[in-house]
Amino acid sequence: MPVNAPELSPALHVPGFRVGTASCGVKSADLKGKRTDLTIIAAEVDCHAAATFTQNRLRAACVDLGEKAVNRHGTEIRAIVANSGNANAGTGIREEEWAQMMITSAADALKISPDQVLSASTGVIGTPFPIDRIIEGIEEAAVSEADWMQGANAIRTTDTYAKWGSRRVGDYTITGISKGSGMIHPNMATMLGFIATDAPINQADLQSMIKRVVDLSFNAISVDGDTSTNDTVYLLSSGLGLGYEPLQDLFEFETVLTDLCIELAQMIVRDGEGVSKFVTINVEGANSAEEARHVARTIAISPLVKTAFAGSDANWGRIVAAAGNAGIDFEADKISLRCDDVVMMENGNLLADYRDADGMAVFAQAEFSITLNLGMGDESARVWTGDFTHEYITINAEYRT
Amino acid sequence: MPVNAPELSPALHVPGFRVGTASCGVKSADLKGKRTDLTIIAAEVDCHAAATFTQNRLRAACVDLGEKAVNRHGTEIRAIVANSGNANAGTGIREEEWAQMMITSAADALKISPDQVLSASTGVIGTPFPIDRIIEGIEEAAVSEADWMQGANAIRTTDTYAKWGSRRVGDYTITGISKGSGMIHPNMATMLGFIATDAPINQADLQSMIKRVVDLSFNAISVDGDTSTNDTVYLLSSGLGLGYEPLQDLFEFETVLTDLCIELAQMIVRDGEGVSKFVTINVEGANSAEEARHVARTIAISPLVKTAFAGSDANWGRIVAAAGNAGIDFEADKISLRCDDVVMMENGNLLADYRDADGMAVFAQAEFSITLNLGMGDESARVWTGDFTHEYITINAEYRT
Repeated sequence: MPVNAPELSPALHVPGFRVGTASCGVKSADLKGKRTDLTIIAAEVDCHAAATFTQNRLRAACVDLGEKAVNRHGTEIRAIVANSGNANAGTGIREEEWAQMMITSAADALKISPDQVLSASTGVIGTPFPIDRIIEGIEEAAVSEADWMQGANAIRTTDTYAKWGSRRVGDYTITGISKGSGMIHPNMATMLGFIATDAPINQADLQSMIKRVVDLSFNAISVDGDTSTNDTVYLLSSGLGLGYEPLQDLFEFETVLTDLCIELAQMIVRDGEGVSKFVTINVEGANSAEEARHVARTIAISPLVKTAFAGSDANWGRIVAAAGNAGIDFEADKISLRCDDVVMMENGNLLADYRDADGMAVFAQAEFSITLNLGMGDESARVWTGDFTHEYITINAEYRT
Repeated sequence: MPVNAPELSPALHVPGFRVGTASCGVKSADLKGKRTDLTIIAAEVDCHAAATFTQNRLRAACVDLGEKAVNRHGTEIRAIVANSGNANAGTGIREEEWAQMMITSAADALKISPDQVLSASTGVIGTPFPIDRIIEGIEEAAVSEADWMQGANAIRTTDTYAKWGSRRVGDYTITGISKGSGMIHPNMATMLGFIATDAPINQADLQSMIKRVVDLSFNAISVDGDTSTNDTVYLLSSGLGLGYEPLQDLFEFETVLTDLCIELAQMIVRDGEGVSKFVTINVEGANSAEEARHVARTIAISPLVKTAFAGSDANWGRIVAAAGNAGIDFEADKISLRCDDVVMMENGNLLADYRDADGMAVFAQAEFSITLNLGMGDESARVWTGDFTHEYITINAEYRT
């Protein structure tokens, strides 16, 4: 059961883009026609494209091909094609050929060049890719008339709900979809996220913007500390917005885009495998944002911290012990810790009037925050994470994902 | 339930050492008299001492004091005093005072100098240390006549059985005890280990030896990826062995000591919280032992790998994906993977005749090995780990440890 999954308003249409879906039976042929598992996002015009990808050393072929396409043809991208049910990763000598066939099929179906197609795959690793069923699905999706919400639905794997969001910036629209539930850890995007806008933004600005935005959103979440082989965020701009005037206020656009990406990223944590708590981890008083982020992530992936969350046990000793494992220099007698507004420790001392029951009341909530101040500098970082529950073990020990 | 916990032979007496225990009620006063929770290892003569400690930035005061004592008085150590039930870590301004009082009380009771006492504490973090009850216990333990096995029993926390082992090297004896069950991850000792010998070895040799031995034993295990604030291994040599001749063959001694420490370390994994599988992770074909160890550890702490172990699911895609997260450069098309003798992947390709049922049969065992060859150099490393089970969640979410 997701934690406080938001009630989503309908996704807004983005001028210049259409969405198609198909049911290929990627995971097994008998699922064909039963649930959608292929999404095409097609643009009417050449788009500026930006992307960030997994930092896992074993990247899937589709990630390599996507990176090449954005680098070489980043001003003339026309489509994203994505499937769920099979990651086409760790599949050996045919992996790249299969990934290329998926791209070529989409290009043929949409009557564009393969250089203009970005692809993404998500699902089980190490299982042969059912390319024939996927090609059939691509042909079907290319002519289907779906919407962003159906597109979000078709890229789900163990996600319990489809994830989308829209924003308006002046006259322009941004709509994004995301997926992810397990193998989620902040080292790049850690999931799939596809975002489209009609705001006219040049490719270099788009690319520098997506890196900053992803660091504050998709890279700031952790479900289980595992970074997937296929994580990808694509951001496309059609420039087809009202007025066709170059966007003046890039800062405002980036602020709104960040807000949207944080919402899409948080939805992934809320839907994390077996998650019963949604916890915000703030690390303050660091010498750099990078150090702060590293400490926050180290807390977020500690199994002892995550099981304490699951047990509603305000066992704050585990939190400071996890912080101590981050490999960052700080002094025990300078750290302060609070959960929501309940202060547990100040300058390394347990507060005399801290009562365990107060901490327990905070940890009993479905949603709360932990704030650790390292007492050094002024930099901070924020990470969102969930807990480790019996349900996580059940999902990952008893089913093959 | 531990995985294949060994049937332990009685621990051998080490000339020059005696062991005392007491029941202080460290964890709560009403446990006093019910189970032992304090151990003193006392030497009749000044001992050469060596040690390794946790790399956690937040080290308990007893760790700092122990390190200072070994560095300054490493040739005249006379005792180790250790308690379970409370780590005296994260307890603020009184932490160091309490740790010092524990040492001074032991020195008084044994009529030696406080400089000659090493201490260690294990248990819950962040709870005030019941120093009065501990001092009472020290006085009782100093005059008790226990043995190594009772000493091993008194340092248990969530350990389901006491851990000890003995070896003979020529005419000399080595006996060690260890404890540990959760918050176990290889970055130093990750638990408590106390080893004593009567073999005459100078202090510098002892110190360089313990670092090498710990890297191959206590640092090569992982239960949950969390490194404790209190991890400590102490090695004492009384030099009281038969003949009183300086030991000639240090290499033979080190080989036997390594073997003993591997056994003590493996016992900790076998008794890991909720562990139902004992898995050896071999990483071969690396450019350095350090790189190999890092990849092996990254696999060992991956929740997705550990839940696949728990589910007896030969989901080897998770293993290679975890390896890819280690941040080490290697090529996907050069790696090979097998579990026990079943080869899954060679040079990046899934073997044509690999059958999932064969992998499943290996994973169904209580004990098996994974061997990943990176296809680069000749260096290798070995790490022992367990799985992530419902029982782990129950222990850590439902009880405060």
